[in-house]
Amino acid sequence: MDIPSYEDVLQAHQRITPYIHRTPVLTSSYLNQLSGAEIFFKCENLQKVGAFKARGASNAVFGLSDADAVNGVATHSSGNHAAALSFAAARRGIDATVVMPNNAPATKKAAVKSYGGRILECEPTQAAREAMLEQVITETGADAVHPYDDPRVIAGQATCALELQQEVDQLDAVVAPVGGGGLISGTCLTMSTISPQTRIYAAEPANADDAYRSFHAGEIVRQDAQQSVADGLKTNLCPLSWHFVSSFVSDILLASESEILDAMYLTWQRMKIIIEPSSAVPLAIILKNKDLFQGQRVGVIITGGNVDIKNCPGCK
Amino acid sequence: MDIPSYEDVLQAHQRITPYIHRTPVLTSSYLNQLSGAEIFFKCENLQKVGAFKARGASNAVFGLSDADAVNGVATHSSGNHAAALSFAAARRGIDATVVMPNNAPATKKAAVKSYGGRILECEPTQAAREAMLEQVITETGADAVHPYDDPRVIAGQATCALELQQEVDQLDAVVAPVGGGGLISGTCLTMSTISPQTRIYAAEPANADDAYRSFHAGEIVRQDAQQSVADGLKTNLCPLSWHFVSSFVSDILLASESEILDAMYLTWQRMKIIIEPSSAVPLAIILKNKDLFQGQRVGVIITGGNVDIKNCPGCK
Repeated sequence: MDIPSYEDVLQAHQRITPYIHRTPVLTSSYLNQLSGAEIFFKCENLQKVGAFKARGASNAVFGLSDADAVNGVATHSSGNHAAALSFAAARRGIDATVVMPNNAPATKKAAVKSYGGRILECEPTQAAREAMLEQVITETGADAVHPYDDPRVIAGQATCALELQQEVDQLDAVVAPVGGGGLISGTCLTMSTISPQTRIYAAEPANADDAYRSFHAGEIVRQDAQQSVADGLKTNLCPLSWHFVSSFVSDILLASESEILDAMYLTWQRMKIIIEPSSAVPLAIILKNKDLFQGQRVGVIITGGNVDIKNCPGCK
Repeated sequence: MDIPSYEDVLQAHQRITPYIHRTPVLTSSYLNQLSGAEIFFKCENLQKVGAFKARGASNAVFGLSDADAVNGVATHSSGNHAAALSFAAARRGIDATVVMPNNAPATKKAAVKSYGGRILECEPTQAAREAMLEQVITETGADAVHPYDDPRVIAGQATCALELQQEVDQLDAVVAPVGGGGLISGTCLTMSTISPQTRIYAAEPANADDAYRSFHAGEIVRQDAQQSVADGLKTNLCPLSWHFVSSFVSDILLASESEILDAMYLTWQRMKIIIEPSSAVPLAIILKNKDLFQGQRVGVIITGGNVDIKNCPGCK
């Protein structure tokens, strides 16, 4: 297993900085009052392609040698990583092929197409995705960039916590969502190196609690077909992300579907930013576990803002 | 007529900086592509109280001597200025009284109350507002802080363009909405001093086009009971704002109700920020007058984000 180092994070940051936004860190007096904590929101919803995934994908794409890049890149993803890889490939002028389940939301397909990615549809199962990706790689020689099970991607996602820490130090805790574990792994990698006293919490939907179960079982527990409004968090941990989660995460906390949606609308209404349901899980767990964060400086990573506003669950 | 100077703007900036957010300037590749311009959005929707009005109100409140401050402040306003004055007064520990029309939206009343402002309701006419405010001032000795017809307020709003210019120079144009004219006046005051080559455009709803008519008539044209989804822009110019508009504005451009709403949703969906309808008028006029802005660096002031998302016109 190829575990990325902090040196990889610094290299990634240098590599991707020309292609990504330096996203702002926002605060809200209202949410501070409500939570009893002082919360610093790193707003990756305002990132290129509307999600932190632009970081990991850009690091993978721009880290390729010219010889390796010429055959393009490929991935399977139903969401933001697919758009991010298409975006980064277009910036480098190479092809991106994305294997997507045929039930992926139209907005996510449109995003991939708008960045010039080629979509191949498959049945909505993990096996079908992997088989079709394998076929693409065999046929094209493309470099496979997994959404999270890739050290280059994790080093890229780690730059998010790096920038947060550059602007706001002495954080008592950082909270980030956990799905496949790319972002939380990057967060662990950065924070454990430059601010080891900061506690790291993973926030997960109770409806897709494979990481929570893994954490308590002491080994990866896989769960298929998890369903949550936080559609970015339905994936399972992999050995690489499990390494970081099991080594550095203080706890994994769960939020219900309605708690997630409440936190999402609260953020829309009070912070004036659009966040997708996955991004609301950290605030939901902060508001529900006040004793853990009372009086503390807490960093939150807002992971993305790609949601169909007019058709969002519970919006009406 | 007491016309604020650029020196007043610098003093205002120093005075209010401890109490307000330094709001980010955001860009969107998508909107740049769509418009053919390079647009820099100064995001005052992410300001305290969700609007630039925090600037002018804070400048007025914190500029008062202790002797003058002791009786509190008062205003008549149906919107963001009322919340902003309540916010600033609470920060200084003095009373704020707000005369509001009895048909003001519940969300705006709630905002004033949440900042500790006292609301007095009146009939929804200009005359009723002014009479009741006069009475409040007589009874309490409060300092009247008009939403825009006040040099302290204009100097405060001018700090917005100052910060924009500090981050993004060599702007070919700046576009800001015009209602009563406080923001556009402050924008004129700053830009005409530090970047006189930058053209200044005022953006106005076609349904509330008193400033447009004034501009073309060469004198203030008042229009009563203007109705627009951009509810912050229904007010008329005053002599002080007319001074700035007539002296420094290159043109006033109009947008229809549907163009405003389209630009608003486009901003929500693509920039991942919540803006209120009034804030969408500049983007609407940029998208409809592409020849004016093609290939240019354009600053846009996003004025606020106070909109009831679940009950927003056309949202469903």
